[in-house]
Amino acid sequence: MGAEGSARLRDTLRLIVITDARLAAPRSVEWVAEQALRAGARALQLRNKSASARDLLQEARSLRDLTREWGALLFLNDRFDVALAAGADGIHLGPDDLPVRAVRAAAPRGFLIGHSTDIPEVARRAAADGADYIGCGAVFPTSTKADAGAEIGVEGLARVAAAVEIPVVGIGGITPEGARRIAEESGAAGVAVISAVMGAQDPGEAVRALLGPFQDRAI
Amino acid sequence: MGAEGSARLRDTLRLIVITDARLAAPRSVEWVAEQALRAGARALQLRNKSASARDLLQEARSLRDLTREWGALLFLNDRFDVALAAGADGIHLGPDDLPVRAVRAAAPRGFLIGHSTDIPEVARRAAADGADYIGCGAVFPTSTKADAGAEIGVEGLARVAAAVEIPVVGIGGITPEGARRIAEESGAAGVAVISAVMGAQDPGEAVRALLGPFQDRAI
Repeated sequence: MGAEGSARLRDTLRLIVITDARLAAPRSVEWVAEQALRAGARALQLRNKSASARDLLQEARSLRDLTREWGALLFLNDRFDVALAAGADGIHLGPDDLPVRAVRAAAPRGFLIGHSTDIPEVARRAAADGADYIGCGAVFPTSTKADAGAEIGVEGLARVAAAVEIPVVGIGGITPEGARRIAEESGAAGVAVISAVMGAQDPGEAVRALLGPFQDRAI
Repeated sequence: MGAEGSARLRDTLRLIVITDARLAAPRSVEWVAEQALRAGARALQLRNKSASARDLLQEARSLRDLTREWGALLFLNDRFDVALAAGADGIHLGPDDLPVRAVRAAAPRGFLIGHSTDIPEVARRAAADGADYIGCGAVFPTSTKADAGAEIGVEGLARVAAAVEIPVVGIGGITPEGARRIAEESGAAGVAVISAVMGAQDPGEAVRALLGPFQDRAI
């Protein structure tokens, strides 16, 4: 990716809204996602570990239409094949998912790859293997992902952000106040959230509150 | 695929050995697979619904080396992305997996696609969408796949085999005697087995017994 594309991606990744049907209920994921896009979110990650590939593809296609309409990026979690089939912009890979290098080798040109780690050395290797951004956390305590481990704090996030040139996005227990600390103190490009938007009574308001600190910083 | 490639695929699909770590235990899947290849099996399908994508890739790479050594085809079950990453020859798709058409659109040239169905009309559509073969069953009663449904018998298999030009492979409760009936009465190209090889005390002997009826037919 060129310097201009990289700067644009960094801007886009100020906020990644990750889906969660349980937290969105009784509203649909699509409804919550549309409120988030309308409020300025420019990146959505479809995450549904329990769906079959076929159901996941159907959901991905629906979110693909929505994100295209709003000019936003769509990432899939884990399932690179579903991402390809749905025409998603990219994939987010965790430690149990396919390795970055294997996906990069099979991916079409321009396909975006995110990788989860809170270890600077692993982040450097992921970038060398072809990752476009790093998801790093849990920054703060969180209950949404049971496997997230102990929180690393804004300091831990800053260490990963300092280790790589590609954008780093903080995840885990992010509130507007946490987003402000991350924007001001960590050097991270943005934040990724599950419950802060999917579980919000007013998802649009939640998005504006999370984006605010990064917009203030840009001025 | 040309007529010659199609005839060769039909020969290769006389027997598909599907992996099952639980049935292979305490032996490794690799060990059982090697006995099967040594005895003449020319197609292996890696099926492991509980493994992470990363672990599945590792297993697939190991079986890729083995099948390459023995000149056999390697299929993955469900995970098209892992199949791509491992350089497998193809993918087997069930009703909950990605649709044939979506995988065909994203697959490299020559990549093989199998699809499960026991309904002639669905088999015809799968072939039109780009499937290279049909897995059809359960032909006989089976306990290996809890979701296999009621058995269709050799007659049900014959109806699907008559509906499409591409090879049809019978699956579900296949014994050497069942394989003989399928070879003689159904028009199917071959059989796919899980427990008959993975659970066999002597996997090589099991493979020879299952291949026999199809070799007799070819003479």
